[in-house]
Amino acid sequence: MVAAAKALVCLSLWLSVCHIRGAFIPVKMNKTIQNLLQYYKIGVNERFNGKPVFSREPLYGKMEAKRVFMVGVLETYERLIEQMLRQLPTPSPQTALAGTASGSEGEAGGDVRTELSYILKKIQYLRKYRYQEQEKLLQSLKTLKHIQMDNSVVQSKALWELPWLYEEASMLNDNINRQRRRRRQARRVKTHPKA
Amino acid sequence: MVAAAKALVCLSLWLSVCHIRGAFIPVKMNKTIQNLLQYYKIGVNERFNGKPVFSREPLYGKMEAKRVFMVGVLETYERLIEQMLRQLPTPSPQTALAGTASGSEGEAGGDVRTELSYILKKIQYLRKYRYQEQEKLLQSLKTLKHIQMDNSVVQSKALWELPWLYEEASMLNDNINRQRRRRRQARRVKTHPKA
Repeated sequence: MVAAAKALVCLSLWLSVCHIRGAFIPVKMNKTIQNLLQYYKIGVNERFNGKPVFSREPLYGKMEAKRVFMVGVLETYERLIEQMLRQLPTPSPQTALAGTASGSEGEAGGDVRTELSYILKKIQYLRKYRYQEQEKLLQSLKTLKHIQMDNSVVQSKALWELPWLYEEASMLNDNINRQRRRRRQARRVKTHPKA
Repeated sequence: MVAAAKALVCLSLWLSVCHIRGAFIPVKMNKTIQNLLQYYKIGVNERFNGKPVFSREPLYGKMEAKRVFMVGVLETYERLIEQMLRQLPTPSPQTALAGTASGSEGEAGGDVRTELSYILKKIQYLRKYRYQEQEKLLQSLKTLKHIQMDNSVVQSKALWELPWLYEEASMLNDNINRQRRRRRQARRVKTHPKA
């Protein structure tokens, strides 16, 4: 009973937040997600178990870091929805031809397929046209995974490249520290102006 | 002949660059890398085949993006050196006990092991103490890979979280555009000051 009440409070809070904001999400998209949630129903205790699928922590960092994490989230949504599409029941030939058995599983699957495909396109669009730079960075990080670690030529070349990269890595860190120092000094000047 | 000359020019250019900079890389580390390159010898044509192990392109981006890529590079170096250590010949009990067979493979392997371990420690230190924020971000990106795509509870919860995340992703993009617009306006004001 307490859990259900807690869940209800969370639900209303969530809905009010969605209502207050919602400046960027199209009405159709929001409605489609609500429809899909009717199909992908789970208990309130499962929904509000305090373990979100996507951690919010990286979204409290620096702007560019937030955007890098966000492109990872969007990419994950794409893979997830593709998986959900694969898991849908395939319409039987009868349903596909007649299309009259209203409320049948095949037809519901068809609706859900259309709705999932619509959501997928919205996410793909956002990632492709609004997160190009971060997308490139993620691709570069992925290529690092495919370096042939046991290849002697790769090992030697990597050793050769190390002085420059180590220097660059140390310098980038030094630049950040200098920026922070400058900001601190500027703040001090602002709070304690010259007499 | 032409290739060898080209390689020699590249080599001297590289060495001069290392000489000009080198403000952050310790002398001992630089020397250790040069020693290791004697052990991990490859032909100049292989070394300068125009295909570096680590792309430099992501290092021309924004500061935070550069740092994210750099932590990926440092992590790759760690895995690579660990692999190189595994590939070293294990010293025979005789060599280990006597330690007199100077110039033997076992002894060379021992030196190389010490040198590789030293380089590994330098890289680990830089990553651990100078790239903590970016390291956290990479870990968050990695957790996205382990989301259970075929779990119906995960699918439903992810759908539930989508409106907020989609809104946030659109908003982040809008913020960047606004920042750019402001910078363009500021530049215009600077170049065309009021008459």
